[in-house]
Amino acid sequence: MDAEASLWERSRRAAYAEISGIAMRLFLDQGFEQTTIDQIAAAAGISRRSFFRYFGTKEDVLLGDLARDGERLRDALEDIPTDIGPWEALRRALDAVHALERDSSDLLKIARMMYDTPSLLSRSAEKHRHWQSLLLPDIRARLGPDADDVSAAAIIAAAIACLDTAGEAWARSDGTLDLAELYDRAIATVRGST
Amino acid sequence: MDAEASLWERSRRAAYAEISGIAMRLFLDQGFEQTTIDQIAAAAGISRRSFFRYFGTKEDVLLGDLARDGERLRDALEDIPTDIGPWEALRRALDAVHALERDSSDLLKIARMMYDTPSLLSRSAEKHRHWQSLLLPDIRARLGPDADDVSAAAIIAAAIACLDTAGEAWARSDGTLDLAELYDRAIATVRGST
Repeated sequence: MDAEASLWERSRRAAYAEISGIAMRLFLDQGFEQTTIDQIAAAAGISRRSFFRYFGTKEDVLLGDLARDGERLRDALEDIPTDIGPWEALRRALDAVHALERDSSDLLKIARMMYDTPSLLSRSAEKHRHWQSLLLPDIRARLGPDADDVSAAAIIAAAIACLDTAGEAWARSDGTLDLAELYDRAIATVRGST
Repeated sequence: MDAEASLWERSRRAAYAEISGIAMRLFLDQGFEQTTIDQIAAAAGISRRSFFRYFGTKEDVLLGDLARDGERLRDALEDIPTDIGPWEALRRALDAVHALERDSSDLLKIARMMYDTPSLLSRSAEKHRHWQSLLLPDIRARLGPDADDVSAAAIIAAAIACLDTAGEAWARSDGTLDLAELYDRAIATVRGST
């Protein structure tokens, strides 16, 4: 990456993080649906048009990480030895991107906001479908040379379903339950080992 | 149900079926996104306002059955002996509501339309979340007295994920693969028996 591109990319990331932070405070203070894009733009001192240079929708401000998480998850998966089976590999990859850690009360508020807002849930499901295609080649390879796309897709979809189930249970428990433990319990039930 | 309510309900269902049929032809002929609610209303000889008496969104015209399917699925599940385990019970319930049968080329076109249209996929995911809560009490009971909501929710979410994975593979295969066989293969992989 040449220096100019890198500077541009760093500025872009800094602006993205700043707008996200400002928007998140508005969401937490006044609610997701009550916060308009115009309010976010005004608070960040940018135009509505500039907002859309960074985010496709208001939902993406809150869920933006989910898309980047998908790529980080794929990269983490590729770093795991190929002789590790698909379930254990997915578990380790989720750990590597800290997807099963929840340690702030803001995260709890954000998760509750998500499970109570249909447009956020829909957008989250859309992002998860994107993860699905990102992770498919790695998981299919782990299933062995005779594996097909349906089997690999089913494992990824079931793992994401367990992650979602665990996340919702964690949010509904007010963060008193442990997310990683909930995920492991969900997977164990699905795989029949309980 | 008294005779008057029943007549009202029958008229309503007939009108619902007629509007759905007319809309479906428009979707199949000209595409889902290219078809407007105004066009559907005009073709059915009703006002836009009347359309919204029957359907919440344009997506619901195509996915309406998914909500009713959820209730039929729950009823079918309740008819299955309680000593049958959760996976087998869900499989039998899907069979009972014919959810794993696909026998018309229209269904193939509708499925392809769904997997290619983000708003339909989102709405479908929303309906599946509704199934989730409808089926939870029955599945939790089948898991035994010590079962918790997370385990029951994980099984239902994983089964729906397999149904979705199978449905998409069926649509992408142009209907040449068998939907029930794809579902069974997805479940078998997830449960580790292959």
